[in-house]
Amino acid sequence: MKLICTKENFKKAIFNSERIVSKQTTLPILNNILFEADKGALKVSATNLEIGIISKIGAKIEKPGKITIPAKTISGFVNNLPAEGENILLEVVNQELKISSGSLKAVIKGLSAEDFPLIPPKKADFLFSISVDALKNIISKTLPSVAFNEIRQELTGVNIILTEKEIFFAATDSFRLSESSLRLKKENVNQDIYNIFIKKINNIIIPANTLIELLRVISGEMADIIITIEDGQIFFEVGGIKIVSRLINGKYPEYKHIIPSNFGTRAVLDRRLIQGAVKMASVFTQSKSGEIFLEISLGGKKIIVGAKNSEVGENSSEIKADIVGQDQRVVFNPRYLLDGLNATSGKSVAILINNETSPVALKEIDEKTGELLEGYLYIVMPIKN
Amino acid sequence: MKLICTKENFKKAIFNSERIVSKQTTLPILNNILFEADKGALKVSATNLEIGIISKIGAKIEKPGKITIPAKTISGFVNNLPAEGENILLEVVNQELKISSGSLKAVIKGLSAEDFPLIPPKKADFLFSISVDALKNIISKTLPSVAFNEIRQELTGVNIILTEKEIFFAATDSFRLSESSLRLKKENVNQDIYNIFIKKINNIIIPANTLIELLRVISGEMADIIITIEDGQIFFEVGGIKIVSRLINGKYPEYKHIIPSNFGTRAVLDRRLIQGAVKMASVFTQSKSGEIFLEISLGGKKIIVGAKNSEVGENSSEIKADIVGQDQRVVFNPRYLLDGLNATSGKSVAILINNETSPVALKEIDEKTGELLEGYLYIVMPIKN
Repeated sequence: MKLICTKENFKKAIFNSERIVSKQTTLPILNNILFEADKGALKVSATNLEIGIISKIGAKIEKPGKITIPAKTISGFVNNLPAEGENILLEVVNQELKISSGSLKAVIKGLSAEDFPLIPPKKADFLFSISVDALKNIISKTLPSVAFNEIRQELTGVNIILTEKEIFFAATDSFRLSESSLRLKKENVNQDIYNIFIKKINNIIIPANTLIELLRVISGEMADIIITIEDGQIFFEVGGIKIVSRLINGKYPEYKHIIPSNFGTRAVLDRRLIQGAVKMASVFTQSKSGEIFLEISLGGKKIIVGAKNSEVGENSSEIKADIVGQDQRVVFNPRYLLDGLNATSGKSVAILINNETSPVALKEIDEKTGELLEGYLYIVMPIKN
Repeated sequence: MKLICTKENFKKAIFNSERIVSKQTTLPILNNILFEADKGALKVSATNLEIGIISKIGAKIEKPGKITIPAKTISGFVNNLPAEGENILLEVVNQELKISSGSLKAVIKGLSAEDFPLIPPKKADFLFSISVDALKNIISKTLPSVAFNEIRQELTGVNIILTEKEIFFAATDSFRLSESSLRLKKENVNQDIYNIFIKKINNIIIPANTLIELLRVISGEMADIIITIEDGQIFFEVGGIKIVSRLINGKYPEYKHIIPSNFGTRAVLDRRLIQGAVKMASVFTQSKSGEIFLEISLGGKKIIVGAKNSEVGENSSEIKADIVGQDQRVVFNPRYLLDGLNATSGKSVAILINNETSPVALKEIDEKTGELLEGYLYIVMPIKN
């Protein structure tokens, strides 16, 4: 292998790969990144056997070939590349990667590419595509409810329900639930294949870690992300990057029925003010898993947020609100309420309540019309006193 | 106690205090901050029995009095204060602190002020003063060599040697040494008292943690810092803040004789480039305590920095340098060299070498004249091969 490529492209490819490389020592090859040079491109691959990522960058290939190199070393190398010199020269000699750029010279010891685990190639046609911004938005609003440390593996993932017109992304740790929905546009769907597919498989679970890695490598300038599902694997393709991940086996909890279809009381208020009030109240709980109360005062046209703890003391803050419905008093874990307030966008937020024991919802507000926005819902269970 | 003060002043006073409060539970009062209202001012004090800090802020005192309040709660409280409302009202009722600001109301349970440990008051006259900027500069350049985890308590401090014309601040962990000097100006010295004092005591050790706290609370707009030493304590006074710290008992190592009086070789080069090259070379060592080499090539008018490790590989970078003296090759721990390069200021830096076993010095450069600057010296011991 011998090639020249730009430092910038090389850095990006390493950056995409370095994080998913496992830090285990039992199988040293898994600590490595695979470099393959062929047909005008350098392919940089990494896998932890759950997620695989392949970045393809343009390169002037003088001699095709391949090698694997410890991720830690090559990542330290690119992070410390000096500004001088635009290109980087890579050459494999005797299972070592020789690198030079400007006055900089390095030799990194490698392992044979033959032993690198295969990242499964895609055979099926794509199902649908989604814009980078839409996917970023959906992922960041769904992740807060994922139960990362859960023994039940399905709760460490994001549930995706594929329907004819819409795709739902949901996560829950049984204390709260996030659900985002994506309306499908004709131009984004591989219609025939999609319609056949969802008759067989319409409910999958993607590991949340896969989505976190995806979030890390995609950026606004990229074209739409192309998504394929096949043999218990999901494939994301965008801007020369392919991510392959296993899906989680198991049945995701049927969450739809716990979402109330109506809410008796609705309060719309400034999102930053309620975020601040919840944080302030959490200071007056013994720990982050303490209890804070939220009182809706229809007559006072305000929400009161506070806490009372026999050891710390007590507090209350008032926030003006537009209220429809009746007076309410609900008790929450402040962290769960705050995660939801942080995940919603916009200046205002709506809090929807039935009573002190039913699930409470947060929704976003159309700033122009003042109407509730569909597309995102955060449900939090009150603490029953 | 009952008073009104501005939110801004109150926040600053809490910010100054919160960090030094110990997190121990055996003596709960030490988790608290003391509030004392009297004569148009609120005094906010905290101590961990090693360092004490007192912030005095202007306040409208309606009723004098005092109380202690858990630092954790009051610190959480001020960190979450909403933007609305300029003032804050404090009132002690039944060993509780009632606070209100705008629509916000809180009650924090306290402990009696009678049990709060005394922060020793200053009786002696001041010795000298120093500008905030000069002290910041000295502290931040000296701290990198402090041995924070050392069993020998004296090495966890900064050594201060007081002489008639100059004060030296030094720290060493026996692998490297930082020394800053401050030329005394007449207007900054309480001459008669200073001259008598240094005949008795001219060598003290200040806990490095005290200087870190000092660094945190001082800011550029403040007037000069007034320094007094008395009964094994040092007092810093600036902008309504008093810091009192015990001095470390013990004898600081006599470091002056290990600083070579002459260096046979001097290389002046771009500081950022050598920082980058040292970081890059450290990637090619097995760990951060690895070995990198630095070669001075008089003929090549360059410095070569690199590393070679039988498991990782090897590297080298070249940097143009102005060299006087002869060719050299010295081996370093990259972290020690990097700490020194990070601590020096300026575009260029001078590396001063005698041979591969003698202490190597880093010095700053006067960018206009190209001359070595006095006032700061970083000494690093080479690794002997």
